[in-house]
Amino acid sequence: MKTVLLLSGGIDSTALAVDLLAQGQQVEAISFDYGQRHVRELEAARAVAQCLNIPQIVVALDLARIAPTSSQTSREIPVPKGHYADESMRITVVPNRNMCMLSLATAHAIASGAECVAYAAHKGDHAIYPDCRPAFVYAMEKVMALCDYEPIRLLAPYAALSKADIVLRGANFGAPFALTYSCYAGEALHCGACGTCVERREAFQRAGVLDPTAYEAVTA
Amino acid sequence: MKTVLLLSGGIDSTALAVDLLAQGQQVEAISFDYGQRHVRELEAARAVAQCLNIPQIVVALDLARIAPTSSQTSREIPVPKGHYADESMRITVVPNRNMCMLSLATAHAIASGAECVAYAAHKGDHAIYPDCRPAFVYAMEKVMALCDYEPIRLLAPYAALSKADIVLRGANFGAPFALTYSCYAGEALHCGACGTCVERREAFQRAGVLDPTAYEAVTA
Repeated sequence: MKTVLLLSGGIDSTALAVDLLAQGQQVEAISFDYGQRHVRELEAARAVAQCLNIPQIVVALDLARIAPTSSQTSREIPVPKGHYADESMRITVVPNRNMCMLSLATAHAIASGAECVAYAAHKGDHAIYPDCRPAFVYAMEKVMALCDYEPIRLLAPYAALSKADIVLRGANFGAPFALTYSCYAGEALHCGACGTCVERREAFQRAGVLDPTAYEAVTA
Repeated sequence: MKTVLLLSGGIDSTALAVDLLAQGQQVEAISFDYGQRHVRELEAARAVAQCLNIPQIVVALDLARIAPTSSQTSREIPVPKGHYADESMRITVVPNRNMCMLSLATAHAIASGAECVAYAAHKGDHAIYPDCRPAFVYAMEKVMALCDYEPIRLLAPYAALSKADIVLRGANFGAPFALTYSCYAGEALHCGACGTCVERREAFQRAGVLDPTAYEAVTA
């Protein structure tokens, strides 16, 4: 089975890549240059794809112009500090990012003869991101089954897992977490204080897996 | 009510623009530069938006690289001649084009405070295009209602109309059809022989509305 995987360069999609490979799937990565402040994640995505020996396509997606209302698509909106699940994190939400990415990945899947598209939405995302919730996943599944002559299947196997579960699962399969990047501030070192950094560190701690990340700030 | 309208520069979306304006809606057009062979349609879209005095955003969408399997996204695949509903027209299908465009339009709607996204899928498209059929429209409606904090409504009011119905309706509202462009061959004059030209001419004839188009070939 051939699957097009949304690979951001973060922990979750990297774990999903090794997970799918361990299942014997043929994986092709798709990554997006969408004007994100944390464009450094694309270097991580390239490194992960190379390390896992999977083909990768990097696609431009002009969300910075279409939807400049997020701290991640506008340099004029500062990145909030704090916990990922906090209400203050709403400003990090890029409107409809997942539907845009899944749609483009689906186009690529149809054109390249893949049966599935996979993304690593997880339980920790539900509080803030509508487009990571089970109801959204089910609705996307349906529309992806109808958009072409043959249905494209949507795989979101981490939708009910916590980030700590994902770290544990990824570590088990040898995911190259040291190559990944999550920080929303987008500097060379992970800042350690933004929502994604706090969540990242917490996930490794809870999973009891060594965190290979160098953080700028030691405490959140 | 504010609506983001997919404006291709063809007959259907131009008719829908005047239709929505006649209903008193605030309309903003979104058009896509997706590597289409018939990129000339974008000039038409600009002229229509200007004529109707509606703001327009033109967005790059790299379907030519993601999905180069259509005569419209690859210069190496010739445009078939004949009737739009013919099986031979399948090669003109750009994989998942509508879901990609609706997703990006939805992102823009969320970011700009619009309540609706509209597109002019019609009955004549059903035979060839899975992403114009009612089942797809219903499924998209659902996912667009779930992708953000507030639902975005999908308007596809022409889904049950023929192209002749649309011409009649558009003419009634004064749609500037003379500014529109439909030809898949993409030359300065409408070729008159490709599926979209055949369908365009047929629609004006059936509607009994003067066809303002100069065609290269007089017979299909």
